[in-house]
Amino acid sequence: MASPEIETLTQALSRLPGLGPRSARRAVLHLLKKREGALEPLLRALAAVNERLVTCQVCGNVDTVDPCCICADPRRDARGLCVVEDVADLWALDKSRLFPGRFHVLGGRLSALEGVRPEDLSIDALVARVEAGGIDEVVLAMNATLEGQTTAHYLAERLERFPIRLTQLAHGVPVGGELDYLDEGTLAQALRARRPLG
Amino acid sequence: MASPEIETLTQALSRLPGLGPRSARRAVLHLLKKREGALEPLLRALAAVNERLVTCQVCGNVDTVDPCCICADPRRDARGLCVVEDVADLWALDKSRLFPGRFHVLGGRLSALEGVRPEDLSIDALVARVEAGGIDEVVLAMNATLEGQTTAHYLAERLERFPIRLTQLAHGVPVGGELDYLDEGTLAQALRARRPLG
Repeated sequence: MASPEIETLTQALSRLPGLGPRSARRAVLHLLKKREGALEPLLRALAAVNERLVTCQVCGNVDTVDPCCICADPRRDARGLCVVEDVADLWALDKSRLFPGRFHVLGGRLSALEGVRPEDLSIDALVARVEAGGIDEVVLAMNATLEGQTTAHYLAERLERFPIRLTQLAHGVPVGGELDYLDEGTLAQALRARRPLG
Repeated sequence: MASPEIETLTQALSRLPGLGPRSARRAVLHLLKKREGALEPLLRALAAVNERLVTCQVCGNVDTVDPCCICADPRRDARGLCVVEDVADLWALDKSRLFPGRFHVLGGRLSALEGVRPEDLSIDALVARVEAGGIDEVVLAMNATLEGQTTAHYLAERLERFPIRLTQLAHGVPVGGELDYLDEGTLAQALRARRPLG
């Protein structure tokens, strides 16, 4: 029986991933009790992002500047390009700081079931980036799903005429993974791609 | 390596209870990808609450109207008053819809250790509400902690001169609780307050 404004806020928060109705209510209470320390900073941060949100015209990342922070960073190695399905994948890879190059976001994966065709994804833009030159290696970092791998194969065909090194993420037993709990597909991949010791 | 605005938003979200750095990042990504469906509604809801946030002068609840929705609701039974330590407790009790009366928020509990004295809490206001008349029953719904119970005893002394029924929440085995896992204090309370069957 809170006021309609508070109910609306609770509902908006409960739609975020990781928050349900109960935790959204706790979060709202926290915001109400700490107006200057929590509510106002969050409000300012949201407004700032909303005002300046853009999609990077180069790689498809979402950011508050265009080109995005990654494309504009001169310390990034422009010779390496990592292709991902989604912005979430870009963020996950970038957070690890393992890939020193730039990214390209396809905006999805090819899917006969969902009717996603090559022209629905940012594939022509990728080909144009590679065609423009200056890129030595393209890493295909699709998800290890049927549709992700179909997309990777399609991209490999489209890119094979360029003088670049085309690679993809290794598949196998995840670090800390116990064979007992792994599916057959992963075990098969790990066995097929086995490597000599030392 | 996101832009400073996005980093600020991630940090503001990660300070909410129930969200850590990782889930805040996922929430931000969700907001960025669904600007019209998620970011803008959340921004509007936050702004509306921030603009109108007040503390109810009657009971101490936080709301967007003063008196708050509960105090202003004519369907509430004004003869019952439930005293709680905190706004969070009020919300928890109100959500259950079990108490048909109104509330009074103390704003904390008496604590020698933390130097919280009676004059630091909304106790004079409570006494004034009871003194003004029209209240039949005051339910002391403090937490079942040492400090909560000390506060309840102090309130009982302050309120004993009024012609009201003074009650407190029952202590005992929580519903679904297994004796095996309960602390001795709870078991002692449950045994002491045992009731005849049927």
